[in-house]
Amino acid sequence: MRSCILSIGSELLDGSVVDTNSAFIAGSLSHYGAAPDMIRMVKDNRKEIISLFQSLSKEFDVILTTGGLGPTFDDITAECLAEACGVEVSLNEKAYKHMKERLERAGVTVRDEHKHQSMLPKGCSLYHNEKGTALGFGMHLNRADIICMPGVPVEMKTMFLDEVLPVLKEKFSLKEIIYKDLHFLAIPESDVDAVIRDLKISCETECIINAGSGKVVVKLRGNNNQEIKNISERLSSYFKANYLGDNYTDEAKLIIDLLKEKNQTVSFAESCTGGLLSEYITNISGASEVFMGSVVSYDNSIKQNVLNVPEHILKDYGAVSEECASFMAQGVRNLMKTDYSVSITGIAGPGGATDTKPVGLVYIGVSHKNNTEVYKNIFNGDRYQVRMRSAKKALYYLLNMIKEN
Amino acid sequence: MRSCILSIGSELLDGSVVDTNSAFIAGSLSHYGAAPDMIRMVKDNRKEIISLFQSLSKEFDVILTTGGLGPTFDDITAECLAEACGVEVSLNEKAYKHMKERLERAGVTVRDEHKHQSMLPKGCSLYHNEKGTALGFGMHLNRADIICMPGVPVEMKTMFLDEVLPVLKEKFSLKEIIYKDLHFLAIPESDVDAVIRDLKISCETECIINAGSGKVVVKLRGNNNQEIKNISERLSSYFKANYLGDNYTDEAKLIIDLLKEKNQTVSFAESCTGGLLSEYITNISGASEVFMGSVVSYDNSIKQNVLNVPEHILKDYGAVSEECASFMAQGVRNLMKTDYSVSITGIAGPGGATDTKPVGLVYIGVSHKNNTEVYKNIFNGDRYQVRMRSAKKALYYLLNMIKEN
Repeated sequence: MRSCILSIGSELLDGSVVDTNSAFIAGSLSHYGAAPDMIRMVKDNRKEIISLFQSLSKEFDVILTTGGLGPTFDDITAECLAEACGVEVSLNEKAYKHMKERLERAGVTVRDEHKHQSMLPKGCSLYHNEKGTALGFGMHLNRADIICMPGVPVEMKTMFLDEVLPVLKEKFSLKEIIYKDLHFLAIPESDVDAVIRDLKISCETECIINAGSGKVVVKLRGNNNQEIKNISERLSSYFKANYLGDNYTDEAKLIIDLLKEKNQTVSFAESCTGGLLSEYITNISGASEVFMGSVVSYDNSIKQNVLNVPEHILKDYGAVSEECASFMAQGVRNLMKTDYSVSITGIAGPGGATDTKPVGLVYIGVSHKNNTEVYKNIFNGDRYQVRMRSAKKALYYLLNMIKEN
Repeated sequence: MRSCILSIGSELLDGSVVDTNSAFIAGSLSHYGAAPDMIRMVKDNRKEIISLFQSLSKEFDVILTTGGLGPTFDDITAECLAEACGVEVSLNEKAYKHMKERLERAGVTVRDEHKHQSMLPKGCSLYHNEKGTALGFGMHLNRADIICMPGVPVEMKTMFLDEVLPVLKEKFSLKEIIYKDLHFLAIPESDVDAVIRDLKISCETECIINAGSGKVVVKLRGNNNQEIKNISERLSSYFKANYLGDNYTDEAKLIIDLLKEKNQTVSFAESCTGGLLSEYITNISGASEVFMGSVVSYDNSIKQNVLNVPEHILKDYGAVSEECASFMAQGVRNLMKTDYSVSITGIAGPGGATDTKPVGLVYIGVSHKNNTEVYKNIFNGDRYQVRMRSAKKALYYLLNMIKEN
């Protein structure tokens, strides 16, 4: 299957929007050993899009487009596809009904201008949009199946995985290659790299290391099941304390599952992370069974009055201190009556540093019954990175305490 | 100046890496009204890269490439450019000296394999790399200047802004254009679109609408100062309640500045958003002056015991109700002794819906002294979108209440 991705939208060529859709589609296809041969971005320019449909359809079996499916004047993908194929656009009743239902549900009055979005090439096939108003559509031209999806990432992702990929798999007999991702928490990339080099992986198996968002992901791909199994086992046992486990890609999900199993609960007290840790855990559906809540104690008065951090602790040691982190963790655990609790207090920057307390200094407390532990960290990076790394590290400490109990 | 960007690297076509370089270059060029006409990604494939250099150089005045300049076997940009231009590669002494100095400073022993990186096309021009080891280089082919930069974003950005852009500005007499972005909150894209259509904007001024993250951004570019001013004024007065204001791109920042000015404070009570609203405001440096803190009252016991929502309210109306939202807002305002407060309670999904309460139903309360208002919303989208839209809408309500007081 020779395929290309066409990302449509002037906003991509003036730098207002980074195209993440292509990487998602490319990544999904590469699970089947069918990475696209070309990715190209094109402006909302009628002549150019039509000419691309015509020329690329002679070169590729599949052309996947994203963008230009919305209701506004610069959304012209459907018109261009119709013209390239030599057909008219007309109001597609099924697409219109879907859009109308969605809009009305959101309380938007459907006006005549909205019809523009449902004017699709005559004879096109349709792809359901579970997450938005614009259905996807496809036409066959020259040797190519041209399939047009929305540009909104969440809409495109669901449509691609649930509607488009199954069609491609069937038509081109795509078979999944063996694909294993190993997630490691709180460890430098170079440590993992050194161990991988020693493993002397054969050229049959592709191995990629990605670091980011406070973790290292090792991606293994190929067809040699035994080698991939061996590498996975070696790495996961070598970095046992850091390995997230075979079926998990998210530490918050693992925490929730472990707590559910034990019928236990957790609460958080956040200062410099300002709600980010709570956001990470509540991002997972099902969090409500184990996560009771949290206090974002941004101001010291909240630490004192809501979390019961003693005034003298704040005065003597300051809010960014081991002592304060310890009282915050215990305070929120008592307030919310949970089995576990986590506290974070630190300096995210750019302001707030002192001679003895640099930007990036973060104390993280984890508490369970009579055992409260506080860890001192100094994180690199800007405000966003310090906050993100603090919240991720807190999940790591919590996970380890849950495993130990 | 007709230009294109070529992002070189197999990792871009298997989805392991999102190409952010192109958007950066495109954004910088569009400030000069010279957005690229094409962005294209290509694998580390010798034949394909050479053929692209040859064909694109007939079509464009400038070809900017990123990637493939490093020391490893799959870094082949220089060889390909040389072959396309019909010249040899040879060891470039200046490039080698730069690399050697950088590596030695970092304590790396320079080996013979490192020379590969300094084998450049004979007769090429050089571009300094302030942040890394690989110099950029350029050749002229057919009508095009081909300029090759490294793929590491921080190296590319500095090289492009300091070395490449000045050359392009000079050669193509690029002049900065007028550039105005208008941000509108809590409004459907189609409403803004309808008004823009009525304005009958001339083709002198480019107008792009982007929707996302709960807001609509209208981008105006051109050289007709008067027209851009007129459009800005018409749009901002037409959507007065939704317009963010001339110097703001972030509603949280505006809220912080308005509260600072009035010497007032705010606190939040979050249920379904689970900390996201707090995260939005604490993401801005300086939030600590006005944001006291928040309670993430995920479990009903926290709503009752920490926020003092009466038990009978939870029993009679449920946690997702106008009444509960009202008590939550007042509860957190009393607890944290703030001038304003916001509460959010709803069903983010995918679970939790009932016959009368669908996924996406969210009550948002805003409270100030004796005035507490609750707004009912039904948001479309998945869990993430419902949470994001709820938090963004809450900022909008808060902003309006602050403006009114």
